[in-house]
Amino acid sequence: MSDVPSRVVLREVGPRDGLQNEDVVPTAAKVELIDALGGTGLVEIEAVSWVHPRAIPQMADAAEVWQAVDQREHVTYSALVPNLVGARRALAAGFTELEVVVSASRTHNLRNLNRTPEESLDQIAEVVAAAHAAGARCQVIVATAFGCPYEGEVDPARVVDHAVRAIADGADSICFGDTTGMGSPPRVRRVVGGLLEREPDVELGLHFHDTRGTGMANLVAGLELGVTRFDASVGGLGGCPYAPGASGNIATEEAVYLLHELGVETGVDLDALLDVAHAASRIVGRELPSRLLKAGPRTRLTPL
Amino acid sequence: MSDVPSRVVLREVGPRDGLQNEDVVPTAAKVELIDALGGTGLVEIEAVSWVHPRAIPQMADAAEVWQAVDQREHVTYSALVPNLVGARRALAAGFTELEVVVSASRTHNLRNLNRTPEESLDQIAEVVAAAHAAGARCQVIVATAFGCPYEGEVDPARVVDHAVRAIADGADSICFGDTTGMGSPPRVRRVVGGLLEREPDVELGLHFHDTRGTGMANLVAGLELGVTRFDASVGGLGGCPYAPGASGNIATEEAVYLLHELGVETGVDLDALLDVAHAASRIVGRELPSRLLKAGPRTRLTPL
Repeated sequence: MSDVPSRVVLREVGPRDGLQNEDVVPTAAKVELIDALGGTGLVEIEAVSWVHPRAIPQMADAAEVWQAVDQREHVTYSALVPNLVGARRALAAGFTELEVVVSASRTHNLRNLNRTPEESLDQIAEVVAAAHAAGARCQVIVATAFGCPYEGEVDPARVVDHAVRAIADGADSICFGDTTGMGSPPRVRRVVGGLLEREPDVELGLHFHDTRGTGMANLVAGLELGVTRFDASVGGLGGCPYAPGASGNIATEEAVYLLHELGVETGVDLDALLDVAHAASRIVGRELPSRLLKAGPRTRLTPL
Repeated sequence: MSDVPSRVVLREVGPRDGLQNEDVVPTAAKVELIDALGGTGLVEIEAVSWVHPRAIPQMADAAEVWQAVDQREHVTYSALVPNLVGARRALAAGFTELEVVVSASRTHNLRNLNRTPEESLDQIAEVVAAAHAAGARCQVIVATAFGCPYEGEVDPARVVDHAVRAIADGADSICFGDTTGMGSPPRVRRVVGGLLEREPDVELGLHFHDTRGTGMANLVAGLELGVTRFDASVGGLGGCPYAPGASGNIATEEAVYLLHELGVETGVDLDALLDVAHAASRIVGRELPSRLLKAGPRTRLTPL
């Protein structure tokens, strides 16, 4: 680990990936959360998803949330969109950064999006074009990149092929999503290494869930491969629809803490972020899985 | 991470370090837990500590527990002892493996053991001699090796000096304890690297707590340094007396899962261990922090 990047960008996904997997919270609480996150030094926040409210009622108020957010200049807010219709709505609302998903696992894509990965990739090409026509950027997330809850193993070559196809269709960046926390350092090396061989200049992010306790080890593995973009959710907000009680995304404050310990800059104020994590816990009305949230950073000493 | 050991030994510390930080559980439940752990392929179990019952009432029944345990031939059971009196009792009860602790932090040692680290090291020399006279082995655990909850930073040179002194006094092995989960990969490299430079042939174990989410990254860092012995507690049993709600030791099943993913053998049957983790959760009457315990291993697929 002698040669890791000196600085990384963390994308906060709590307001979207986190809250999508919690009970519905009021619009005002979402806005409060996004605005508080914007004051911590985070420069990327996945704010909402523009999906059908029947599919994901937690995100039904995306337009209202977005309108009420105090949109800070130094923060890039992104919206996840399922298709061209959602993309047009998000662009009309003023988003300049879209995310769209394809699963590397055929079964997962069929169950999740009701179409084959190939059909998804065709639609993604249209979404990317629509984003570019509106002067926006579009990231393609390849989900189940390190394993599928239905199929188990997912061939790394298939994951890489999907990313390469998306790049050819104009994707501005790629993100590999460990949708249900099946990743491990060797799997990260196979998938990320496979893409970097074919697309050395790709803008690549990694999205880990800590479902099985490997999240932080995966982050370090990605860092050692030179990856400089990681997703995380404040407090470890969220969960996994396929495993009740299972942990959600890696916790942003744990990522910040570990990265700072590794000497990697994030630009994030850890104490401010811990305050937001406490607020997030109040908002969802439960204890969040973040361990750092309970213990505090190592600098918080026990009085004698 | 190209060159990690092909096999490691995990020492299960749930019955001692875990239960010591939980509400008191009945003797029979402790015996049940130790016996169940002995059937998972684990070859080292820290079974009890021989401390004064006023100090740690959770371990007051050490003798009864040990007498009732189905002592398996292929398992080495160890007892933690605070001093020569405890050591003599543990040896008389038939233990062949003792552990004794000194804190690298002067303040922690004074608070925890009511003597200076130097006084502890003098007493440890006597404990080691007593163990050897009885044909037993003795491990010296250097606690607060990666940070102290009172002092904060702990000089790695001080940690290494304590270990070197203990080795000179006959310690059969050393363990660096991350008592309150303040470790991180660079700190692991500094402390472990420092000892290996001076004592390349030392039998060294690492004992991590996952208090701040760095446990698994620390384990990987230790592995990359060639360390082949790690402590862990089933389910992540235990906690941290200085931070209510904080996580305890790294969870044994998460360590096994990650190690197997890394291609490192442990000899442990993960499914059997997960059954014991569920039992441990019932015994202490609360949900344990292990994430793998909730989600199950990646091989446990979601039915279509």
